[in-house]
Amino acid sequence: DFKKITLSIDHIDKGDYEHFMLKEIHEQPMSIRDTFRGRVAMDESKIFLGGVLDVMPQLIKAKRIIIVACGTSWHAGLVGEYLFEKYGRIPVEVEYASEFRYRDPIIQEDDLVIAISQSGETADTLAAIRKVRETGATILGICNVAGSSIARETDAGVYTHAGIEIGVASTKAFTSQITVLTMMALLLGSKRQVLPASEYKELIHELIQVPSKIEEILKQESEIEKIAAVYKDVTNALYMGRGLLFPVALEGALKLKEISYIHAEGYPAAEMKHGPIALIDENMPVFALAANDQSYEKMVSNIQEVKARKGKVIAIATKGDKGIRKMADHVIEIPECHEAVSPLLAVVPLQILSYHIAVMRGCNVDQPRNLAKSVTVE
Amino acid sequence: DFKKITLSIDHIDKGDYEHFMLKEIHEQPMSIRDTFRGRVAMDESKIFLGGVLDVMPQLIKAKRIIIVACGTSWHAGLVGEYLFEKYGRIPVEVEYASEFRYRDPIIQEDDLVIAISQSGETADTLAAIRKVRETGATILGICNVAGSSIARETDAGVYTHAGIEIGVASTKAFTSQITVLTMMALLLGSKRQVLPASEYKELIHELIQVPSKIEEILKQESEIEKIAAVYKDVTNALYMGRGLLFPVALEGALKLKEISYIHAEGYPAAEMKHGPIALIDENMPVFALAANDQSYEKMVSNIQEVKARKGKVIAIATKGDKGIRKMADHVIEIPECHEAVSPLLAVVPLQILSYHIAVMRGCNVDQPRNLAKSVTVE
Repeated sequence: DFKKITLSIDHIDKGDYEHFMLKEIHEQPMSIRDTFRGRVAMDESKIFLGGVLDVMPQLIKAKRIIIVACGTSWHAGLVGEYLFEKYGRIPVEVEYASEFRYRDPIIQEDDLVIAISQSGETADTLAAIRKVRETGATILGICNVAGSSIARETDAGVYTHAGIEIGVASTKAFTSQITVLTMMALLLGSKRQVLPASEYKELIHELIQVPSKIEEILKQESEIEKIAAVYKDVTNALYMGRGLLFPVALEGALKLKEISYIHAEGYPAAEMKHGPIALIDENMPVFALAANDQSYEKMVSNIQEVKARKGKVIAIATKGDKGIRKMADHVIEIPECHEAVSPLLAVVPLQILSYHIAVMRGCNVDQPRNLAKSVTVE
Repeated sequence: DFKKITLSIDHIDKGDYEHFMLKEIHEQPMSIRDTFRGRVAMDESKIFLGGVLDVMPQLIKAKRIIIVACGTSWHAGLVGEYLFEKYGRIPVEVEYASEFRYRDPIIQEDDLVIAISQSGETADTLAAIRKVRETGATILGICNVAGSSIARETDAGVYTHAGIEIGVASTKAFTSQITVLTMMALLLGSKRQVLPASEYKELIHELIQVPSKIEEILKQESEIEKIAAVYKDVTNALYMGRGLLFPVALEGALKLKEISYIHAEGYPAAEMKHGPIALIDENMPVFALAANDQSYEKMVSNIQEVKARKGKVIAIATKGDKGIRKMADHVIEIPECHEAVSPLLAVVPLQILSYHIAVMRGCNVDQPRNLAKSVTVE
């Protein structure tokens, strides 16, 4: 059963961009629109996800959702955990596919498993769902590549429609995965009648606004590039966030690691005091995701703690924020938004920063050493 | 309601040791014996945990266990997750206390919450259980300090009996926490009739052997010190493990970070290919926890991948292992043991390594910069 894949050259051409990664970062307003196109009612009152219609009864009655993934997709899964728990009121467990598959995982009746993979070919994730298959549990896939193994071996699924991603460091696939997870969480909240119609509609509206807000962030690229120039020679970096922005801290660190070979690590901000803060001195840049409403005061304290130890703070803050500007060495602003969609905005400046730091260090951005686009071996 | 605390000087004296941390590392055979003393039947057929007797019905019928903790205790929780799922057949979720408390966590009927904290005063963990308290769920505490806030505010609990821990970087408290979690998992497996009596007895026997096996590891201290001398000037390090030894990789990295200020990070070994392997060059030491039976072949592949990129590998392997010795730059052997107790052994050489590296770097081992023994502020 063969299928001819026809690629139009303008889909894989770099266009005016120096690297695929930069092109893909800039495509995000478009790729996110492609992700929700045709899936949201014109009046923004409803979400349609054709791919999960068949399993809607299982989704509605699910007692627990288990998300399995690797790498960047695992970070998207952590964002999904917050969204499903908050808006769908279902307990979620996110597992490294590689760890999950070698355990004897407990899959109970009414558990639902979601596998996330850009390529749909990630070896450990594929092996994990084959293991789940034996239990008879319902499995959903979130993939970018149509017709991929994971897309074929799941009971239902949602394509991210991000378009072909060439850069090894995932950018637009990540934001499209989060867009899908956000839509699923809201749809689920509505169907399970735990998300009031007005809030459902408000959150859909917030999601629809994301692409134009990312366009605003992209306009700050030259400013972000200047910050990149300041930190291009560091050997280490820490990223910290809370709540929905904790996984973004992990993802920001991973981007820097992958393409610039700088040892960067992400942390939930409160864990800093339990060890990592010992690393802070005048040579350590700390990227602080401080755009949450709910944990704003706590992040302010965490930034103060880093500054008290002479660390450098590069903060991602909400547009117009005065307090953080007084403390941080650099501030990158993102447009005001609902907390639910903040990961989609906050990750973009971190992608741009990593990209420019890597270029300034002379690294092969699109094909970093030692890494493959899809990890199809174990 | 005041209580006079009398401390005998020989309990807080450093004795013949240069630092409390070194003393506490060496006390582990004794502290682990103290943890299981009086809690195991003479014929090794049964475990008694008086502290949880009152909540045994809730434990037996628990549909899910949620473990909340911070820092090193959070790593102990991750070990607990494997043990409870494997031997007790209960799904477990481990949460950073700081993240858990600011969410709107979903606590369902028949959920059971376990809080782990050496001091019993960790601010975020205490706040997390106060939040759980509102839901009416049963809460268990695992603390070292008797009469501490968490010990008082939980429905039931088990003291670790590790003795006073002075070093800011936790060592003996960690192994005692794991000892308690192991006992709880086995007891639960037996009570829930999912762990056959013969295996129950075998695993108890394995646990009882741990202190004398740690004594064997401690005898290798001068060899481990020589390895420390080789790596004392590195700026970065990675730790990798799988299964029960993945949390030990996290803990090994945290120890190095806390007291030597070297940026060390732990990873589940399979995740290396999803990013961190880009960091590997001839300057990057990788500590590989390769003492598992089940994932041995996979760890061998992971070590080969690091060596192919010219990284340095320091492996923790089972005594007599020939294969890993051929590939790794250094091997530290731990006695043969059942996988269930492997975290208790594998962490010890990592503690010793971190200690000697920090001493050689002239760091204040017992009171590292920026860190407090108990994080009683948020």
